[in-house]
Amino acid sequence: MFLKDVISRLSLKAIGQFPENLNVSGIGSLQSAREDEISFVAGHKYAKWLSETKACAVIMDYESLKSGLPSGIKFVILDSKNPYLSFAEATQIFKDVSGEKNKIASDNFESRYFIGKTSVKGKNTVIFPGVFIGEGCSIGDNCRIMSNAVIGNNVIIENNAVIYPNVTVYDNSKIGNGCIIHAGAVIGSDGFGYARGKAGYVKIIHTGYAELEDNVEIGANVTIDRGAVDFTRIGAGTKIDNLVQVAHNVIIGRNCAIAAQTGIAGSSEIGDNVTIGGQVGIAGHIAVGNNVMIAAQSGVSGNVKDGEVISGSPAFSIKEWRNSAVLFKKLPELFKKIKEISKTKD
Amino acid sequence: MFLKDVISRLSLKAIGQFPENLNVSGIGSLQSAREDEISFVAGHKYAKWLSETKACAVIMDYESLKSGLPSGIKFVILDSKNPYLSFAEATQIFKDVSGEKNKIASDNFESRYFIGKTSVKGKNTVIFPGVFIGEGCSIGDNCRIMSNAVIGNNVIIENNAVIYPNVTVYDNSKIGNGCIIHAGAVIGSDGFGYARGKAGYVKIIHTGYAELEDNVEIGANVTIDRGAVDFTRIGAGTKIDNLVQVAHNVIIGRNCAIAAQTGIAGSSEIGDNVTIGGQVGIAGHIAVGNNVMIAAQSGVSGNVKDGEVISGSPAFSIKEWRNSAVLFKKLPELFKKIKEISKTKD
Amino acid sequence: MFLKDVISRLSLKAIGQFPENLNVSGIGSLQSAREDEISFVAGHKYAKWLSETKACAVIMDYESLKSGLPSGIKFVILDSKNPYLSFAEATQIFKDVSGEKNKIASDNFESRYFIGKTSVKGKNTVIFPGVFIGEGCSIGDNCRIMSNAVIGNNVIIENNAVIYPNVTVYDNSKIGNGCIIHAGAVIGSDGFGYARGKAGYVKIIHTGYAELEDNVEIGANVTIDRGAVDFTRIGAGTKIDNLVQVAHNVIIGRNCAIAAQTGIAGSSEIGDNVTIGGQVGIAGHIAVGNNVMIAAQSGVSGNVKDGEVISGSPAFSIKEWRNSAVLFKKLPELFKKIKEISKTKD
Repeated sequence: MFLKDVISRLSLKAIGQFPENLNVSGIGSLQSAREDEISFVAGHKYAKWLSETKACAVIMDYESLKSGLPSGIKFVILDSKNPYLSFAEATQIFKDVSGEKNKIASDNFESRYFIGKTSVKGKNTVIFPGVFIGEGCSIGDNCRIMSNAVIGNNVIIENNAVIYPNVTVYDNSKIGNGCIIHAGAVIGSDGFGYARGKAGYVKIIHTGYAELEDNVEIGANVTIDRGAVDFTRIGAGTKIDNLVQVAHNVIIGRNCAIAAQTGIAGSSEIGDNVTIGGQVGIAGHIAVGNNVMIAAQSGVSGNVKDGEVISGSPAFSIKEWRNSAVLFKKLPELFKKIKEISKTKD
Repeated sequence: MFLKDVISRLSLKAIGQFPENLNVSGIGSLQSAREDEISFVAGHKYAKWLSETKACAVIMDYESLKSGLPSGIKFVILDSKNPYLSFAEATQIFKDVSGEKNKIASDNFESRYFIGKTSVKGKNTVIFPGVFIGEGCSIGDNCRIMSNAVIGNNVIIENNAVIYPNVTVYDNSKIGNGCIIHAGAVIGSDGFGYARGKAGYVKIIHTGYAELEDNVEIGANVTIDRGAVDFTRIGAGTKIDNLVQVAHNVIIGRNCAIAAQTGIAGSSEIGDNVTIGGQVGIAGHIAVGNNVMIAAQSGVSGNVKDGEVISGSPAFSIKEWRNSAVLFKKLPELFKKIKEISKTKD
Repeated sequence: MFLKDVISRLSLKAIGQFPENLNVSGIGSLQSAREDEISFVAGHKYAKWLSETKACAVIMDYESLKSGLPSGIKFVILDSKNPYLSFAEATQIFKDVSGEKNKIASDNFESRYFIGKTSVKGKNTVIFPGVFIGEGCSIGDNCRIMSNAVIGNNVIIENNAVIYPNVTVYDNSKIGNGCIIHAGAVIGSDGFGYARGKAGYVKIIHTGYAELEDNVEIGANVTIDRGAVDFTRIGAGTKIDNLVQVAHNVIIGRNCAIAAQTGIAGSSEIGDNVTIGGQVGIAGHIAVGNNVMIAAQSGVSGNVKDGEVISGSPAFSIKEWRNSAVLFKKLPELFKKIKEISKTKD
């Protein structure tokens, strides 16, 4: 691909001369990029590597970095107000290139997977060896169901979905267009619901389902339980990192980002555009508003209003939490002072 | 199924008139139930939906809700002192109905799984495509071993067990009667045991095993390590939620409930009827008594006596912890006050 | 195996008489060991079981325990300055014995797995039924790739590696000599990287890879993401417990031990010989030095210097943290005192 075409597709401004026919083959970090690759800087922290990079072009916010640029740079500057976004878009341009490298012949797979007689699959959908698909399923076009994934009965998978190896999708789940489910994830498992009877726990048989709307991405070894009688739903465009737990009847809005190892307990509702750090715990039966941000390791035990930014366990305003966290460290000093005051007083 | 039969099986008292031959087909939430379904209210929070429900009958604690009931209700009230338990029992009644819907023909599976020549399986046990079972195993009657589950060597699985897809059971594990193991769970993996030698860590070869007693349920992607030389054991009737970690040589009592993402470190012992919230950490080599309750995100670093209710990290009495947690938020105020007092004093 | 040979291989000093031809068959705990097994005591806590053990020989630190030994002991004392290490070494001696017990015939497996035509495997490497291996892979000698594991394209696995069932290794990963990857672990999945565009998140296509150096052990259901454009690397000899999350571009040094459910966010670097407790969270883009110890449930939000021992969330010196944690419990008392002082003052 010509550099000039990359620049044009990303709507960037090039600073520096380069030949019309300069070819670029991919993207690398400042340290790893070869001479036919482009690179990027997002933020000042990594700008120190600019003097060493072999990349032929570097995406950056020129205005913010120009005063600190090393002299004699040979790369073309690809100016962007949002270099991280431009980098992400660039990776999308090279997606097919890297995809091609890893292509695998899919002939002879048909005798190597199982699909129920009443299930249907669309065109250009590749099913890998070892996959099991139950009865009554509908798999769309252009999907990839990779090795040893297991799809239960009556599951609907829309077009362009990618199911990575060893994923399990329980009965009656719905997977939207363009969803990506990483290896080992479990969609639609039984919720953790029991009533305490005289002889021990009585299991609530879960008749609900789990639904991923369009363009949801689910990380490796994530677990998403289905609804007890209704549904668990992940809104369109929401991205969930590895090892996250989503309990039964949880409803998550659109375009949320949920970092690794977070857990959301049963029946809670999360709004749109919510950002949740890693290892956060959210209690059951609460409501978290739109545009909320929750810092890593927080414990959220009550409702959260739109736009709040919170931290701590139990969580409250991150500004106040930071003040308290600093003072927690000074508790010994404080107790000493109180003791002194008490003595003086006497 | 006739409503009158459901009522009789659940030992409920019906308030309201209904035809002898009124048929019910399942259970729904107040919002989702169709006219031929029953529903339930457990607690006041969801009672607001009572005026809208289409359900023909609703399980509730009539005494506690009657003053707030909407006028002109058409559904039959199914009075229960413990509506959540009655709901759970009702789901058990409809279990077979929903199970039937998802039934899959199991013919032609036999050429599609592997079972060692010295392993035996009982009657009515269905083994799905892609399953691997090693040598010396004994699988009981009426079990379902679902697709791509892997059972090692010398494993004993008692009657009526359900092993979901992609589960791995290591060598020498014992799975009791009626156990349910959800997708992706790992039973009997090597414990995290090493001694530090001069050249790095020396691995302790684990010769023990993991045991689930009867009616244990294990959530998706849970990990349970086997004993180093002895065993790891989960007591009868205990329920473990998704993504929980149980380390080597842990012994958990009967009828415990352990919520998602909790971790229990090596050699600790948990009593009977213990309830553990999500994301709790329990240190190694400690003892937690019977009937203990541990709040979510707690860190338990020492022994806990029977009946204690604890919270925090490190955890202590939940009452005291709540007081401290409220004051943590007020630390800035406190430090300010101290400063003022100090000044005044001078 | 003769006891005298075990003693010689472990370089222990025997205290007590025993026949030349005394045979030992394995290792047990003090409580479980049979008369032809050896046992061990590491620390005083479990020494109480010494009076009951049936073991014919017990590894211990004689100097430290001799004053408390029960009278009339029949077992041979195997004196060791580091009994836990000697025990670990002893398990290694008996490794082959216990391995033999679980051996499985590997004939007839070849028609039951899939390996790409351009992939190669070394000698004595056993591939189990249901395994999928893509194109361009190189698998070394003496490896075991167990049932339903899935290996992508262009993966390199060195000699003597063990891949347990249901593991997924993504394209381009590198697995070093002697690595052990437990069931359900995922190596090389997409990092959680998106840029926020106008219409939602734009995914960063990850072209990097994940690398495990030699003798790394990875626990069950662990997730290790690959680098965005470079790599994620786990240093030689490092041991990672179950359900740990390692994000994209993380670099972990040699001989670290990372306990269960810990998460390390993107681009952070961990030094050599670092010990990390369970459920720890480490923020992204930070550096943790060599020989650092991090207590369980800590949250590490900034750089950590060589040799530091830290605790808390946010984490700081464990000594100071312990002081503060004790006083957190006394906050109600403190607030009461302040109130009293304020009153008196007025």
